Amino acid sequence: MGAMLLDRPSSSDLGALAARLFKEVAVRTADVEGVSRPAFSAVETETLRFLLDFARSEGLAADWDAGRNVVFSLPEHECAENYILVGSHVDSVPRGGNFDGLAGVLAGLQCLVRAKREGVRFAQSVKVIAMRGEESAWFGPCYIGSKALLGVLSESELMTRHKEDGRTLDAHMEAVGIDMARVRASRPLLDRRAVTAYLEVHIEQGPVLIERNLPVAMVSGIRGNFRYKKIACFGEAGHSGAVPLAYRHDPVLAMAELLNGLDVAWHDHVARGEDLVVTSGMVSTDREKHALSRIPESVEFSLDIRSQDAGMLRNMHDMVRRHAERIERERNVRFDFGDVLWTKPALCSAPLITELTRSAKALGLEPAVVASGGGHDAAVFSQVGIPTGMIFIRNRNGSHNPHEAMEIADFEIATSVLYEFLITPQKSGPNKQRKPVSC
Amino acid sequence: MGAMLLDRPSSSDLGALAARLFKEVAVRTADVEGVSRPAFSAVETETLRFLLDFARSEGLAADWDAGRNVVFSLPEHECAENYILVGSHVDSVPRGGNFDGLAGVLAGLQCLVRAKREGVRFAQSVKVIAMRGEESAWFGPCYIGSKALLGVLSESELMTRHKEDGRTLDAHMEAVGIDMARVRASRPLLDRRAVTAYLEVHIEQGPVLIERNLPVAMVSGIRGNFRYKKIACFGEAGHSGAVPLAYRHDPVLAMAELLNGLDVAWHDHVARGEDLVVTSGMVSTDREKHALSRIPESVEFSLDIRSQDAGMLRNMHDMVRRHAERIERERNVRFDFGDVLWTKPALCSAPLITELTRSAKALGLEPAVVASGGGHDAAVFSQVGIPTGMIFIRNRNGSHNPHEAMEIADFEIATSVLYEFLITPQKSGPNKQRKPVSC
Repeated sequence: MGAMLLDRPSSSDLGALAARLFKEVAVRTADVEGVSRPAFSAVETETLRFLLDFARSEGLAADWDAGRNVVFSLPEHECAENYILVGSHVDSVPRGGNFDGLAGVLAGLQCLVRAKREGVRFAQSVKVIAMRGEESAWFGPCYIGSKALLGVLSESELMTRHKEDGRTLDAHMEAVGIDMARVRASRPLLDRRAVTAYLEVHIEQGPVLIERNLPVAMVSGIRGNFRYKKIACFGEAGHSGAVPLAYRHDPVLAMAELLNGLDVAWHDHVARGEDLVVTSGMVSTDREKHALSRIPESVEFSLDIRSQDAGMLRNMHDMVRRHAERIERERNVRFDFGDVLWTKPALCSAPLITELTRSAKALGLEPAVVASGGGHDAAVFSQVGIPTGMIFIRNRNGSHNPHEAMEIADFEIATSVLYEFLITPQKSGPNKQRKPVSC
Repeated sequence: MGAMLLDRPSSSDLGALAARLFKEVAVRTADVEGVSRPAFSAVETETLRFLLDFARSEGLAADWDAGRNVVFSLPEHECAENYILVGSHVDSVPRGGNFDGLAGVLAGLQCLVRAKREGVRFAQSVKVIAMRGEESAWFGPCYIGSKALLGVLSESELMTRHKEDGRTLDAHMEAVGIDMARVRASRPLLDRRAVTAYLEVHIEQGPVLIERNLPVAMVSGIRGNFRYKKIACFGEAGHSGAVPLAYRHDPVLAMAELLNGLDVAWHDHVARGEDLVVTSGMVSTDREKHALSRIPESVEFSLDIRSQDAGMLRNMHDMVRRHAERIERERNVRFDFGDVLWTKPALCSAPLITELTRSAKALGLEPAVVASGGGHDAAVFSQVGIPTGMIFIRNRNGSHNPHEAMEIADFEIATSVLYEFLITPQKSGPNKQRKPVSC
């Protein structure tokens, strides 16, 4: 599948370079196991500085932006009025894998190195951004770097506290040198109108490309979701042998009926070709009280339902509450749902999916489009109206763990698709390369 | 409903006496909350001695038996060759209620006091036994006192250890003066053939009499059960958003399907008038690993299925395993069932149920027959072939907790049914009162 790529001698050189960069960053940010690159930390700053130094050593333009991210470009595009932005994040979860985020940054950087070394002109101006603070593991909110960049980071998000040191996100961001007056005022740190498209390469966080034996795929969109962290179901305790069915109010069997009902609906939707995933990741009766021969008085469980289709999410949410109400009546139990968290789906741009697919085909790749279950900075760009595209790289063992296993050969294929896209004049959308101006 | 009873002046005197005895025992065995009368403890011995002294003060025969239980009778029945045995236990669970067990002992004792005071002859010889060690809370095994009495206490049960002091059951039984050579050799401590019937009055441990507004009911039998303390279901962990249905192996949804399937079957069986209860009292994903946005790799849950019908239990067990195998195939998950514990159902004697019901009707009570979900010493007597009958007393809040709430008025009604039965010549079974012999 990668045969055409191997015909290009520069490709394997660049593959070795990418492998070296991945390794150097991993060594510099190693933890007891895996890597830890905390959001808005000195480790994150050092990672960005390492990449900045490398880019400059390759003759690229590279500098800090107002969000204290690093932006790279060919020297002639440094002051472009309009540009395609390629990017991802450099932070990781605690003891995470090395590829989540970093792969997208290095893919963009490699395209710049290759164009520079080979003297190739992109079809449009291109900037590559290495962002901070995408992972929710440190403060709670996700996509912090890109939200700040686009002026959509909320006051309540700024007031969240670091999981370890307890200081606010605001304080951490200020400490790395970000102009917080602008962030607090929800003023974007870049000119949205200058960004004609945002592209992000990322490892797949699920098993679809492994299962389908595909090195890369285009992303149709990022699933939105609604999540209940803790749904409690209350019934009535009793002796497991002594309370007949007619007098039972068993919360565990009520939960089982609700979850099984959602599972059946999920199977139906998928059979109709609709996009949906349903998960109850945490389930527990009360350890202080539960026993083999005791009907429990309560059970707690979580619910995480995702889809690319906002209408589907609304329908599933209605269904959850409707089923719960029926079960409450029929079983005389009570559900306490607690707070619901909604995240809107973020669709990728259909023209960009088409163009990226064309680039993949031009390289002899089998075209494929899959949904993203995990969230990405791309969602923020999409939600403010910037045409957004994503390329997934095959990856074994999921993400957010030290066992992420992306092959460099697959990374090279994804990067080649991106490169092909960047050098090919687009049939749709703004395609005029403006003359560089001084900046 | 108790109108006829109130016509008998002695009844309310005896009610006051019973209330005083309940209270005295409660005060003597009070714990931080509720009462604690550990099996084979000094507290249990003192409780028995208190009852022995009381019985003797009423002119009754009362003495320790070979199991260091106390046996009461009218003086003329002390050496009866054949007799109806009425009994229950005096031990309680830790911080338990005062009525579980003690009510049955006091009901029998009150019948003797009443017959003695009123100079009434029973239709057959009657002995009342206050037994030790019925509760499984202290050592693990249940019905220890009655098993020892009937020669069916196993060696492995004797080797179980006290939950608090770690000493064996054998050592504790020896310490209270039981002839352990006989117990270890599985030789009965009483002559089974002399016992023409065993009768036990007990508080109901479920809500049926409360719900049906009945003070008492006859018991059809004690449900048998099969129990799995910890069934593990193993699937595959993954990102809640990133793994499509086709690649999921979700153990929580597998468990929900199994439990919901059992629930549906349970409803069907009950609709056909069959006896069955189904409980999963303990459910939990792994607290070390589980998260809102993570498909869990495993879940653990318990299963406790009870019925009076041994065939029903076998069918349900087959169904559990068959459903689990189908779910394993369909979802590519694996169930590890661990050990199963079987307890056979113990039916009450149909002629005795008929006679007890006749006695209840003679007192103007609405006749009712219910199943017992909890286990009782009566199960041991039934299982060795002694005709067994039970009378349940209405009780609020279940048993094994300090909030047991039996009304003395209901206790009096149950005791009157027992008394009516004991003074009425039976139409079935051995009914000849043998002459007392010296013993």
